[in-house]
Amino acid sequence: MATVKLWTDAEVAADARVQAVFDDIRTTRNSDFINNFWRALANQPDVLERTWANLKQVMFAPGALDPLTRELIYIAVSAINSCTYCIHSHTAGARAKGLTDQQHAELLGVIAMASQTNALANALQIPVDPEFPVS
Amino acid sequence: MATVKLWTDAEVAADARVQAVFDDIRTTRNSDFINNFWRALANQPDVLERTWANLKQVMFAPGALDPLTRELIYIAVSAINSCTYCIHSHTAGARAKGLTDQQHAELLGVIAMASQTNALANALQIPVDPEFPVS
Amino acid sequence: MATVKLWTDAEVAADARVQAVFDDIRTTRNSDFINNFWRALANQPDVLERTWANLKQVMFAPGALDPLTRELIYIAVSAINSCTYCIHSHTAGARAKGLTDQQHAELLGVIAMASQTNALANALQIPVDPEFPVS
Amino acid sequence: MATVKLWTDAEVAADARVQAVFDDIRTTRNSDFINNFWRALANQPDVLERTWANLKQVMFAPGALDPLTRELIYIAVSAINSCTYCIHSHTAGARAKGLTDQQHAELLGVIAMASQTNALANALQIPVDPEFPVS
Amino acid sequence: MATVKLWTDAEVAADARVQAVFDDIRTTRNSDFINNFWRALANQPDVLERTWANLKQVMFAPGALDPLTRELIYIAVSAINSCTYCIHSHTAGARAKGLTDQQHAELLGVIAMASQTNALANALQIPVDPEFPVS
Amino acid sequence: MATVKLWTDAEVAADARVQAVFDDIRTTRNSDFINNFWRALANQPDVLERTWANLKQVMFAPGALDPLTRELIYIAVSAINSCTYCIHSHTAGARAKGLTDQQHAELLGVIAMASQTNALANALQIPVDPEFPVS
Repeated sequence: MATVKLWTDAEVAADARVQAVFDDIRTTRNSDFINNFWRALANQPDVLERTWANLKQVMFAPGALDPLTRELIYIAVSAINSCTYCIHSHTAGARAKGLTDQQHAELLGVIAMASQTNALANALQIPVDPEFPVS
Repeated sequence: MATVKLWTDAEVAADARVQAVFDDIRTTRNSDFINNFWRALANQPDVLERTWANLKQVMFAPGALDPLTRELIYIAVSAINSCTYCIHSHTAGARAKGLTDQQHAELLGVIAMASQTNALANALQIPVDPEFPVS
Repeated sequence: MATVKLWTDAEVAADARVQAVFDDIRTTRNSDFINNFWRALANQPDVLERTWANLKQVMFAPGALDPLTRELIYIAVSAINSCTYCIHSHTAGARAKGLTDQQHAELLGVIAMASQTNALANALQIPVDPEFPVS
Repeated sequence: MATVKLWTDAEVAADARVQAVFDDIRTTRNSDFINNFWRALANQPDVLERTWANLKQVMFAPGALDPLTRELIYIAVSAINSCTYCIHSHTAGARAKGLTDQQHAELLGVIAMASQTNALANALQIPVDPEFPVS
Repeated sequence: MATVKLWTDAEVAADARVQAVFDDIRTTRNSDFINNFWRALANQPDVLERTWANLKQVMFAPGALDPLTRELIYIAVSAINSCTYCIHSHTAGARAKGLTDQQHAELLGVIAMASQTNALANALQIPVDPEFPVS
Repeated sequence: MATVKLWTDAEVAADARVQAVFDDIRTTRNSDFINNFWRALANQPDVLERTWANLKQVMFAPGALDPLTRELIYIAVSAINSCTYCIHSHTAGARAKGLTDQQHAELLGVIAMASQTNALANALQIPVDPEFPVS
């Protein structure tokens, strides 16, 4: 149940601006499958273009963090933000990039660990040690 | 400014249970420095023992994710939970494990990216594609 | 699936205190439709009365912010709090108050933008410029 | 206390890529003042460029929502994400765009109202009325 | 550092509406001390009156939960919402109502425990057992 | 819809390590029913063992907070973290421990109250009174 319409391929085909983004998604990901996230953003072409341009740069450009590590970080953020859609899509994405059960277990371990120490440090308002900050 | 007392080494020395945890922290991390988080938890020996036992297992045991990757995930969770203390302590921890400026930049990129798509997916209540869930 | 019973109109009619609130909701909103939020709060008459009294004042009293702007702010808060119910009910509410597709797109743009800079400012623990605070 | 260095104007001047962004910020905002957020992002030129490009489009482009309304939504998101820096910078920004005390009071009213009904709707897991979703 | 002015007693005395709330706070809490929260809300008399009326009813009216239990719940919510001010004020409030070190330790234990299982249940998107919901 | 498989009793029986935890859950809770949370964690035996060991200590050991109070705190944390699963399981748990409708109503009242003052204190960045912190 969404608050907006999810665009079908036929509806996308009738809008050149949206179609261009969908074409680039398919090419970049080397897959015909377009998930609901983009079909919902199609209602807001500005947001669609900006979000895809950002995502393409952040998740697909070569860099110092390998693609699977980026997905692990993405899952962690999505779990804490309680984003059902993003947890599902990026767990699937991580699996497609080779996530093993052992890696998944350790990811869950760190997410749970950080959540509990975050709660404790906040509940106790522990002052930052002067050794930590850079400036 | 904390809601509890931060224990000095002298106060720790007077409590065998707390001292045992502090000894293990120093041995495990191969460092004499004990940060404020543990000095605050010293007020609650049950919580101290449980939290350190968990952390030692999650962050120090050999596994499928290398120690720096675990710190990156930890920072991501802490940033979303808005835990000032944990952001500082685990960014320092990541630096000690070799975090480069380029890796830090990409970590920030993924955290920012996930935050914005989380907000969009939640605001639009996009339904999970049937291709994603496992069960 | 709720953790409490949702009251039917017949059940409401048997409880004068709940009925009085439902009557005022119908009169104030000039509509016969009562959504599930109020049918769930009917189990807690104190909470029901207090919440409706607050909402009536905050959302319906004349003021310096027009009703649609108030709904935009409401949607933004609900998206960040990951409240499925409130995102749906207030997006519907905003539409009923004339929300255009263009306004919706810009709302989403700001929500996504703020989410990403919030994450960055928190992850970097950027100190507040002395020019900003009032006291 | 930040986890990264805050760049001075002299340091910015030595980096053409960062200087170009700072120049555009000054021109776009018609002000010489550059706040700490950008001085911190200067460490990550990719993130700096992407974030500023997004912000310029979202907050400065003409559109259906006036600049002050966009700032109100920005403050609301930042308050819920508990981003100290962003709350301060965007409250200052809203004041610069003419925020009155009465508007501020009503903004706070809606933020507080939404927060309480979000908590109630989540705590009760109230099902979305079938009248609300679009698809 | 606040985004608004904190009212002094002299400023309060010059505003009958604010003074009436401050008088009731002093009487209800049987103390002359007025903390900064109310001195900040004094800028928004509508919000001040509504918030105090709600708080008086929720935290001071006789009921099925004793005053200390209500404070424990308040601290838990405030820790998860990362509200520095509220964590401090309600931990002080709980101490004034007799919070023992052992109770504080157990409160922290439950907050940390819930945070970690929340993160796990969200990260795994575990479906609700049909035995749990009421309707 | 989960991101992992939910283990059946037959699958559990084939894994001695998981079976041992399930046996202890059944004994400790004096019930044959094992809810989906544990059936999902069975995929990660380390996380399963650690989480159950923690939960058993935090929620079942005798202490200064009675079992129902611990459940109330658990529900409050889960509501703010927007954890659908945990809200349902711990509301059911609280009912099994004797939660009355009146207690539930007051719990909801405190959760809503804290949420609104958290939002206000954060939005106004109210400075902590020097009377509050311990160290």
